[in-house]
Amino acid sequence: MKAALIEQLRSIVGAAQVLTDGDLTAWEQDWRKRVRGKALAVVRPGSTAEVAAVVRACAGAGVSIVPQGGNTGLVCGGTPDESGTQVVLSLQRMTAVRSIDRENLTMTVEAGCILQSVQEAAQGAGLLFPLSLAAEGSCTIGGNLATNAGGTQVLRYGNARELCLGLEVVNAQGEIWDGLAGLRKDNTGYDLRQLFIGSEGTLGVITAATLKLYPQPAAALTAWAAVPSMALAVQLLELANERLAAGLTGFEVMGQFALSLVAKHHPQLRVPFVEDSPWGVLLENSDHESEAHARAQFEGLLEAAMEAGVVTDAVVAENLAQAHQLWHVRESIPLAQAEEGLNIKHDISVPISRIPAFCEETDALLTAAIPGVRLVNFGHLGDGNLHYNVQAPEHGDAAAFLRGEEARVNAIVHDQVHKFGGSISAEHGVGSLKADKLPKYKSPVALSMMRAIKQALDPRGTMNPGRVLLG
Amino acid sequence: MKAALIEQLRSIVGAAQVLTDGDLTAWEQDWRKRVRGKALAVVRPGSTAEVAAVVRACAGAGVSIVPQGGNTGLVCGGTPDESGTQVVLSLQRMTAVRSIDRENLTMTVEAGCILQSVQEAAQGAGLLFPLSLAAEGSCTIGGNLATNAGGTQVLRYGNARELCLGLEVVNAQGEIWDGLAGLRKDNTGYDLRQLFIGSEGTLGVITAATLKLYPQPAAALTAWAAVPSMALAVQLLELANERLAAGLTGFEVMGQFALSLVAKHHPQLRVPFVEDSPWGVLLENSDHESEAHARAQFEGLLEAAMEAGVVTDAVVAENLAQAHQLWHVRESIPLAQAEEGLNIKHDISVPISRIPAFCEETDALLTAAIPGVRLVNFGHLGDGNLHYNVQAPEHGDAAAFLRGEEARVNAIVHDQVHKFGGSISAEHGVGSLKADKLPKYKSPVALSMMRAIKQALDPRGTMNPGRVLLG
Repeated sequence: MKAALIEQLRSIVGAAQVLTDGDLTAWEQDWRKRVRGKALAVVRPGSTAEVAAVVRACAGAGVSIVPQGGNTGLVCGGTPDESGTQVVLSLQRMTAVRSIDRENLTMTVEAGCILQSVQEAAQGAGLLFPLSLAAEGSCTIGGNLATNAGGTQVLRYGNARELCLGLEVVNAQGEIWDGLAGLRKDNTGYDLRQLFIGSEGTLGVITAATLKLYPQPAAALTAWAAVPSMALAVQLLELANERLAAGLTGFEVMGQFALSLVAKHHPQLRVPFVEDSPWGVLLENSDHESEAHARAQFEGLLEAAMEAGVVTDAVVAENLAQAHQLWHVRESIPLAQAEEGLNIKHDISVPISRIPAFCEETDALLTAAIPGVRLVNFGHLGDGNLHYNVQAPEHGDAAAFLRGEEARVNAIVHDQVHKFGGSISAEHGVGSLKADKLPKYKSPVALSMMRAIKQALDPRGTMNPGRVLLG
Repeated sequence: MKAALIEQLRSIVGAAQVLTDGDLTAWEQDWRKRVRGKALAVVRPGSTAEVAAVVRACAGAGVSIVPQGGNTGLVCGGTPDESGTQVVLSLQRMTAVRSIDRENLTMTVEAGCILQSVQEAAQGAGLLFPLSLAAEGSCTIGGNLATNAGGTQVLRYGNARELCLGLEVVNAQGEIWDGLAGLRKDNTGYDLRQLFIGSEGTLGVITAATLKLYPQPAAALTAWAAVPSMALAVQLLELANERLAAGLTGFEVMGQFALSLVAKHHPQLRVPFVEDSPWGVLLENSDHESEAHARAQFEGLLEAAMEAGVVTDAVVAENLAQAHQLWHVRESIPLAQAEEGLNIKHDISVPISRIPAFCEETDALLTAAIPGVRLVNFGHLGDGNLHYNVQAPEHGDAAAFLRGEEARVNAIVHDQVHKFGGSISAEHGVGSLKADKLPKYKSPVALSMMRAIKQALDPRGTMNPGRVLLG
């Protein structure tokens, strides 16, 4: 049975693209090295027709499929379980940029395109594909769409969902749905595209997508502001929204402790105002007119913010190198945090207006529960999305902390998120890591509708089982 | 049986809110007076709990429900059939603005809120709710979301879909799903919100929504440009996107014949350049800085367009009154067209880059098929959405034309739309008017997935049957 399926898969994609032996770590282990699975085979189709044939072959054999892009997911959604019975369907060979339509501001790409290649292809046509996130050098656009990826430009351009106009999908029956329209308006029935986006491979396999492009801005400037409190950071966001409107393409908040870890572990980086300010805010202003106009706008905003007492100090990067340095500080937080030791990560969102109260209350609960606990709080404040991470107390046994406290810390944070009307997974998805938590935090009516949809579109339950919805 | 249900409905919403006698034209006849149905009863619940109880009562009796908002739909999706067996569930009493959250840039409103009231409530809080369309004084936000309404601001702010962060829905089982989160990022499972938006009441009843708000622009200026061809109109759009970027909040194209009908039937309106120019384009530039800046940007764009030969003449409105006049010309086209006589309407979209070729080819096909036919072509070029309407030849019998030619004209236009990768319903939806056309133009794989979802969420088939999907 197993051998027959492998033979069939070989005949579909070629023997060289069915991996069963040797070191399959790259496909079997997740990005954060939290889990290590065992695949029946790693299958690497080279076309949509091959994907469809692979899905039909697996369906016929009753074998489950785990679709995989760049394998950079953070919730163990793209690696196989330990049973050795699941086929990993890797899209990494499907990397064609099928077309770019400048006048329509769209491009059609295959699922295995690396996000950075998509950005570069757009740039090559003089346009912008704005999705941007830390893993962009490795993650694929198919994975970005399957998980509805977020990143740093969401407050202006939306999540991956908002950047996709059409999809090509192989459904659980192995049929190809060609929904690759480059249309900004199409009201001919249920928006299936939206259902597949963010469904983490549990309903079908995204094989290609038509993406929205934008004109490139004439200039993008970066500023760093020192802010006395989270409440004032929210006020700064309000001011920036009013004055820069769609020009505001980045608004990242970083707590002093998070920044102090960067200063400690990456002493070569200059971290602005880290000694003096409880919070740092990184702002990006993208301007379609000119750099001079962008700078004048930025300076006007920051002066007004200082006069209003919202900002105590600020600097606008003088050139691209300085801007990159500021972004580099922001992007170094996860690494500095890892260098400081083991920690408990969260990816939460809360209505922006409630973030100051959420942080104050949750900080207090955690500090009371675990004396000496250290909070590494940073994130995309413009989207209400915080990476509210919890670091072991100094000089303690971090491994023991993680073993002993992770469940309790997660419960405290997630209960608070729930109380404040937020989401326990803002941008990373559910995968298998958080699937057991949905029943506690998600409406039972929503869960029962999700189950009905899963049953309707994947009645055999072979598409990425155990992810998002538990059986 | 019937009497027992009516009794039960009366006990749920109060006898005064169950209409069975008298003139029910307002609920039984569609906006364009194309169909006149007969309801078992018109039920007007006052709360979400009442909606849920009504749905449960009807489900128990096996009676179908037709949800209705402002009854301004253009595809016969919200009026009952002629059988006298369907309950019209009118949301018009649920008009509360439940909350406005300025810092989160969101508001939560009930489904029966008139769109204009939503706009005004946002304005009252110093913010902008950008959805705007001709029926805004009568249509409801619940209907806007159920049909994923479009309108004139889509190129900047998106369709109704993109303006909604959360929904409250009564599903086909009469359960209440509270999905009213004001979150810009939430990746905890399938995006049910997106499934209900645009499903035209066939999966459940939208009872409330959390909407995105934006800062109000400092100024919004309107310009009118004379453009020699549709290809040059597309070039003007490209230039405007580059120079105004997100400032470009309106881009409407209007053919000379469409404008000549306005000039003929509404002689009090001054239609710019109507004698001399094959096309007129209405542009809106919304600026967060100042009116002076908006004007300078606009003038720079139009000068560049004239130098490039894209525009032959242009005018920027000097004040609000002039701007309103220009918009009034655009909005008078449907009325002037009706005054000219019966005509065949389309609501299509095509990739923007292909619109010139689509128009050229389709004009030629229609003119060859029906000598003397007159084309009233206008629409939201920024979204690739044209109202490509077909007027009877002059001096002919328009009623006979409509009877004899509507099916043939629709087939020519829709076949062309299909050939050019477009949609036969860009913003109006499917309703019962176009439900029979989907099987010809929509992928069978998509249709079978839509049917599976309908069956999963509404297994009894009592939610707005015969709309979107035929039995």
